[in-house]
Amino acid sequence: MRRRSSRPGAFPQCRLVRMAPRAGLMTSALVVGCGLIGASVGMALRDAGWDVFLEDEDPAAVGTAVRRRAGQPWENGVRTEIAVIAVPPRLTAAVLFATQTRNVAQTYTHVASVQSHVQREVEGLSTDLSTIVGGHPLAGRELSGPAAATADLFAGRPWAICAGPQTGGQAVTALRGLVAAVGADAVALTAAAHDAAVAVLSHLPQVTASALAAGLVGAGLQADELRLAGPGLVDTTRLAASDAALWEQILELNAPHVAPVLTDLAARLTSAAAALTSLSDEPSPPQAAAAVAAVRDLLRTGNAGRALVPVKRGVRSEAFAPVRVTVRDEPGRLAALLTDAGLAGVNVEDVHVEHIPGRPTGVIELAVEVGDVIVLTDALRAAGWSVADPD
Amino acid sequence: MRRRSSRPGAFPQCRLVRMAPRAGLMTSALVVGCGLIGASVGMALRDAGWDVFLEDEDPAAVGTAVRRRAGQPWENGVRTEIAVIAVPPRLTAAVLFATQTRNVAQTYTHVASVQSHVQREVEGLSTDLSTIVGGHPLAGRELSGPAAATADLFAGRPWAICAGPQTGGQAVTALRGLVAAVGADAVALTAAAHDAAVAVLSHLPQVTASALAAGLVGAGLQADELRLAGPGLVDTTRLAASDAALWEQILELNAPHVAPVLTDLAARLTSAAAALTSLSDEPSPPQAAAAVAAVRDLLRTGNAGRALVPVKRGVRSEAFAPVRVTVRDEPGRLAALLTDAGLAGVNVEDVHVEHIPGRPTGVIELAVEVGDVIVLTDALRAAGWSVADPD
Repeated sequence: MRRRSSRPGAFPQCRLVRMAPRAGLMTSALVVGCGLIGASVGMALRDAGWDVFLEDEDPAAVGTAVRRRAGQPWENGVRTEIAVIAVPPRLTAAVLFATQTRNVAQTYTHVASVQSHVQREVEGLSTDLSTIVGGHPLAGRELSGPAAATADLFAGRPWAICAGPQTGGQAVTALRGLVAAVGADAVALTAAAHDAAVAVLSHLPQVTASALAAGLVGAGLQADELRLAGPGLVDTTRLAASDAALWEQILELNAPHVAPVLTDLAARLTSAAAALTSLSDEPSPPQAAAAVAAVRDLLRTGNAGRALVPVKRGVRSEAFAPVRVTVRDEPGRLAALLTDAGLAGVNVEDVHVEHIPGRPTGVIELAVEVGDVIVLTDALRAAGWSVADPD
Repeated sequence: MRRRSSRPGAFPQCRLVRMAPRAGLMTSALVVGCGLIGASVGMALRDAGWDVFLEDEDPAAVGTAVRRRAGQPWENGVRTEIAVIAVPPRLTAAVLFATQTRNVAQTYTHVASVQSHVQREVEGLSTDLSTIVGGHPLAGRELSGPAAATADLFAGRPWAICAGPQTGGQAVTALRGLVAAVGADAVALTAAAHDAAVAVLSHLPQVTASALAAGLVGAGLQADELRLAGPGLVDTTRLAASDAALWEQILELNAPHVAPVLTDLAARLTSAAAALTSLSDEPSPPQAAAAVAAVRDLLRTGNAGRALVPVKRGVRSEAFAPVRVTVRDEPGRLAALLTDAGLAGVNVEDVHVEHIPGRPTGVIELAVEVGDVIVLTDALRAAGWSVADPD
C-alpha cells in the first residue's frame, strides 16, 4: 500500500512512500553491527514498516542507531525473519556463524564487499548453509558510523545477491524482500562473478586513486602551483579519501581477483611511461612515431572503455541540456530563479550552483529537457535574468 | 566601473558586471583559432567591453564564433593590443610567429597546455621575444569547438602566466589585463614550474584515467555485472572521455615532465600488484603481513595525498553541511522547497538533486552553513517537508 499526498505530510519523520506490514510478508529483522551500513539498513526497513532489532559490541553505536530511529536494542528471546550481519569483512563469517548458532532468525545474510572469501569461511564453520545467503549493497558514503546513516542510502542502488550452492530458495526470497523494502535493485550472481566484477569496477579504481594521490606527497608542489589543480584531479583522487582500515581488508580478501587486473593496469602504465621516457630522450623519428602511437592507442582505448561506464545517477542524462544563468550570490536568488522557471512551465531536472570565489556573482546551471532550452532561455530573459546563449 | 542593480537588467544580453572601456586600458584583442578556448575568450572579452577580432583557418568556425557573439572577423589593417593564439599545442609556436610577422598586435600570447616546449620553439623562430608571453587558462569542458564556448568558462579559474627570460614588462601587463577581464585568477610562474606542476596535477590524472578505463575494454563484464558500477568508477574514469588527438600532443610535448612521475606511479602500482599477488598464493604469515602492510601504506599515503588536493569549486566546502529532503519528482517542487528555505532566512549555498530511476521520489540535498542546519531542518519539517535527520 502506498500513501501519496499532494504535499509531504506534516509529521517530522513522515516519508512519502511507506509500505504497511502485510500478513505473509517478512516484517522483522535483526541488524548485527550498527555502522553506516547497518544503521542505514535499520532506518530504511523501519521506514518500510519493519520491526528492526539492533546489536553491536559497542553499546554506544547501538545507542546512536536507536536515536537515529534505526530500530530498538535486541532482547533475549526475540527471533526475526532475517538477520543482517553488517560488520567488517574479516569478521563477517565468524559473526554470522555465531549469530546462526543462537538461532535468532530464519535467514542469515551479510553485506561484505567480498563474497567468495566469506562464503568459503562460512562453509568451513556452519553445518546449515540452506538459511545463509550472501549479499552486498553497492552503496556508501565518504563518512562512516551510525551518525552518518541515512534511510535512502540504498534507494535505486544495486544490491548483489550471491546464493551459495546450498542456499535454500526461501533464504533468497527473504533477502529479495529486504532488498525491495530498502528500495534497492537486486542483482543475482555467483560469488565469483561478483568478486571479479567489483575487482574491476570498484577495487581497482580505489587502488588507482590511492596511488595517484600518494604521488602528491613529496611532489614538492608550492601553494601557487597547487592552485593549478582542476576538477580532473579532484575527481580522480576522490576515492583516495576512503577508510584505509576497511579497504586494506577488502583488497586482502579479494586479492585473487584484484591482483591480475592490477598487474595489467600497472603494465599499461609502465608501457606508457616507457613511451614518454623515449620521447624525452631525443628519439629517432621512427622511435618517436612509435612512442606517440603507443600513447594514442592508450588514449583511444580509454575513450572506448569510458563509453562502457554506466553513467546514471548524479550525472546529467543525454536527454537534458543546461541553461546557464549568472546571478548575484545572495539569499533567495536561487528560489526566485526556480520560481520563474516554474512560471514558464518548465521542469528543472537538476541544478548546479557554481560560486566564484571573491566575486559577487555565481553561475547557476539548470538542467532541463532539450526541447525546453529555448523556451526557458526566452522566459528567463524576459523576466530580467542574465542567461547565457544555449550551447 | 561596475553596474549593479537589485535585479538583473531587463535586456537579454545584459550581464551584471560589465567593465566599460576606459582610456589607457587595453580594449582590443585578436583571437587566432576559434575553438572552445578561443571563442570563449572572445565571448568573455566582449562581455567586458573589449573589441574582439577573430581568425581561423576554417571559415565555418569563425562564422559560428561570430554568431555566438565572440567578436567580428579580422580585417586587413586592424591592429589590436593583444593577440591570443588559441590553436593546438603542436601548431602554437608557428602560428604565433606567423601572426607576429604580420605585426597585427602589440603583445602576443597563447593558451597552450605545455609551456617550455612552445617557448623553446618560439625562441627558435622569433627575433622579438619582448612582446611574447606564454599563458595557459586552466579551464575546459568535455565538449569542444566554438558551439560549446561560454563567456564564463574562465571565471574564478587559474590562468598561468609564463614570462620568458626576454619577455617585456608591458607584455606581462597586457596579459594580466586580459586575464582580469575574463574573470580568471593570474598565477605567475616559470614555464618549467608550470610544466612540472601540470604534469602531476593534470597530465598524470589523464593518463591514469585512460589506463583505468582501457581495462574495461575486453574485461568481459556482462550487462548485469556492469550494473554494479558506482560513482567511484564514474569519477575516476571521467577524464578518459577527453579528446585523444589533443592529449596525444600535450603528453608528447610535456614528456620530459610526465615521464618521471608516470614511472613513479607505475612503480607504486606494480608494487601493490606484487603484494596482492603474493596474498593470492597462500603466503606464509610473515609474507602475508608484509603484503598487507604494503597495501595499508599505499592507502594511508593516498589519504595524505588527497588531503593536499585543493577542493574548491563544485565541491562542498567544509563550512557547509547538507540538509537532505525527500520530494516527489515533479515540476515546481524544487522551487517550492527553496522558497520555504528562503522564508526560514537560510541561504542555500548549493543544491544537489538525486533522481531515483523508476521511483516517484527524489532526494534534494541543500548545502547550508553548518550553523543553519538545525534551523532549516526544523523550519522545513514545520512546513511539511520530509527532511532526514542531520548528520
